[in-house]
Amino acid sequence: MSNKAKTITIALDVMGGDKGPEVVLAGAELSRRRYPEIRYVLHGEEAAVLPVLDQYERLKAESVFHPCEMSISMDAKPSQALRKGRRVSGMWKALESVKTGEADVMVSAGNTGALMAMARFCLRMMPGIERPALAAVWPNLQGESIVLDVGATIGADSEALVDYALMGSAMARALFDLDRPRVGLLNIGVEEVKGLEEIRSAGTRLKEINLPGMDYRGFVEGDDLGRGGVDVVVTEGFTGNIALKSAEGTARQVGTYLREAMSRTLMARIGYLFAKQAFRRLRDKMDPGKVNGAVFLGLNGIVIKSHGGTDAEGFASAIDVGHNMIRNSLQQKIATDLEKTRFGELAPTGDSK
Amino acid sequence: MSNKAKTITIALDVMGGDKGPEVVLAGAELSRRRYPEIRYVLHGEEAAVLPVLDQYERLKAESVFHPCEMSISMDAKPSQALRKGRRVSGMWKALESVKTGEADVMVSAGNTGALMAMARFCLRMMPGIERPALAAVWPNLQGESIVLDVGATIGADSEALVDYALMGSAMARALFDLDRPRVGLLNIGVEEVKGLEEIRSAGTRLKEINLPGMDYRGFVEGDDLGRGGVDVVVTEGFTGNIALKSAEGTARQVGTYLREAMSRTLMARIGYLFAKQAFRRLRDKMDPGKVNGAVFLGLNGIVIKSHGGTDAEGFASAIDVGHNMIRNSLQQKIATDLEKTRFGELAPTGDSK
Repeated sequence: MSNKAKTITIALDVMGGDKGPEVVLAGAELSRRRYPEIRYVLHGEEAAVLPVLDQYERLKAESVFHPCEMSISMDAKPSQALRKGRRVSGMWKALESVKTGEADVMVSAGNTGALMAMARFCLRMMPGIERPALAAVWPNLQGESIVLDVGATIGADSEALVDYALMGSAMARALFDLDRPRVGLLNIGVEEVKGLEEIRSAGTRLKEINLPGMDYRGFVEGDDLGRGGVDVVVTEGFTGNIALKSAEGTARQVGTYLREAMSRTLMARIGYLFAKQAFRRLRDKMDPGKVNGAVFLGLNGIVIKSHGGTDAEGFASAIDVGHNMIRNSLQQKIATDLEKTRFGELAPTGDSK
Repeated sequence: MSNKAKTITIALDVMGGDKGPEVVLAGAELSRRRYPEIRYVLHGEEAAVLPVLDQYERLKAESVFHPCEMSISMDAKPSQALRKGRRVSGMWKALESVKTGEADVMVSAGNTGALMAMARFCLRMMPGIERPALAAVWPNLQGESIVLDVGATIGADSEALVDYALMGSAMARALFDLDRPRVGLLNIGVEEVKGLEEIRSAGTRLKEINLPGMDYRGFVEGDDLGRGGVDVVVTEGFTGNIALKSAEGTARQVGTYLREAMSRTLMARIGYLFAKQAFRRLRDKMDPGKVNGAVFLGLNGIVIKSHGGTDAEGFASAIDVGHNMIRNSLQQKIATDLEKTRFGELAPTGDSK
């Protein structure tokens, strides 16, 4: 009690996600129990939210509820969502809570494209950052790494890649409690290939900058995502999205093979019974829902994107990521690093170190 | 005996790969036993090849051996390999065997970049094809699919993507014995994103062409690689390389998790003993070596690339892929389709169907 943590206020887009309030509020309740310092600002349509919220007495008592007029559907186009949902949707209003300072961070399981469009429009980009990046936390054999951009922006140039490296390493310091996260640029192993000038020049620039809070390790390849070895993997959004989905797909594929193999023969089924606990632990490790909660970086405010199809436990993970980012001052860390780099541009002799 | 298959002659770069003759010749022996119609043209340095070849009496008797002066190292740069190894290396001479018609197909576990550079230089591109694509066979939950380009060429435009689709579907017809393989273009799910004009216009073009031997199914995402649903996944080489390596890395990662989980407790170890057979089958399914043998497409001749670090079984798989491609007339299938498309360009009303 003496060591009471500072309140962290989280704005929720309660209508977002495939199941809306049911999953969002159940997840909110889970996180609230884990971190009693969390308070929520809930945005959603009254008729849909209140009946569910009534099931959680304590959550209801500790939260502020702002009813909204409409919600963004999961398949709305970003432009359409902006046109119709600006200023009136729960998604927008939850972002606005961050803008006005009512909340510290916003979490949504809603439509990704709409969320990004609205976040850019409502919160605007940080000075010097052109477009947002979406950073995902990915498990690997040595722990976890942050991979960005996993699909917020298509076609990053070398400057954008450097910005991703800065923002990603700030996030790694905040999330993994590291002093000097190792950063790698995703590339392919073939030498003398064309078309990768932006990656090579980003690498050169990262070596030059030589920030105290980042340990640039050079290029990594697709299989390093699973192997680990760096804390932050930097890539352009199209490639990052496909890499991550390929990996997720493969994890599910192997899981299916495993289930099939374990049910095919009597011996295998007996073996499964003995090793049940081990399989359960394995499933937890392989479950992408366990690391749910990607972070939009580069905006004036932190926005967490949960999978639309997640369950309460998964949504709680996304809230936990948001909570973690605030408690560890992610936004300030990014701002400080960006400032250092800009200074470095004026004095490229390396005295920014 | 009455149904004797036509001889298929395969040129081997015997010095290629991390272990050279030892693995290459052991693999050649395995394939020869599976397909007695195979004959080999072996290229390599005499002192290294002959002592190993002497261990395989029948293989030696049925093969032609051409000694060469030098070999391309696994880490040579493509330009360097071309400069030093043109006309004199085993890799080059094996390609030349295909060019002169001495062999039907060439297989190498050597340096990928060097192999591609030499293959382009020695065999030249097929008329109308700009640059080669590397096609990999990848297991998915519904069987297998062909993924191309996995890294031969960076930065495919829409025309190149259409060519990949044509070549990939010809390969699927040859390898999987399908009449009308389903083809998907790898894309990301976010709508209204920029920078994907080449993918969209390739899609439009594929719909227009409407080839009798290809069933274009639209866009697929990264997780469809593991899920299956199409027989051919078409993508630009940088993205394809990273997607495939991400998937391979994840398969290894999950395999490691599984081993750890199965050895941690006594119960798990007992379970493992019961389910041993099932685990063995699973490992076979997950083993990337089992589908070893990527195919360079678009050249005047078929070139198969084996993993450098493969074992005899893996190298035999690569030879089998080459054997299969020849038996099923891959090259002619590609040529016919390309011709049809060119005709389609003159008469875009769809009467090419």
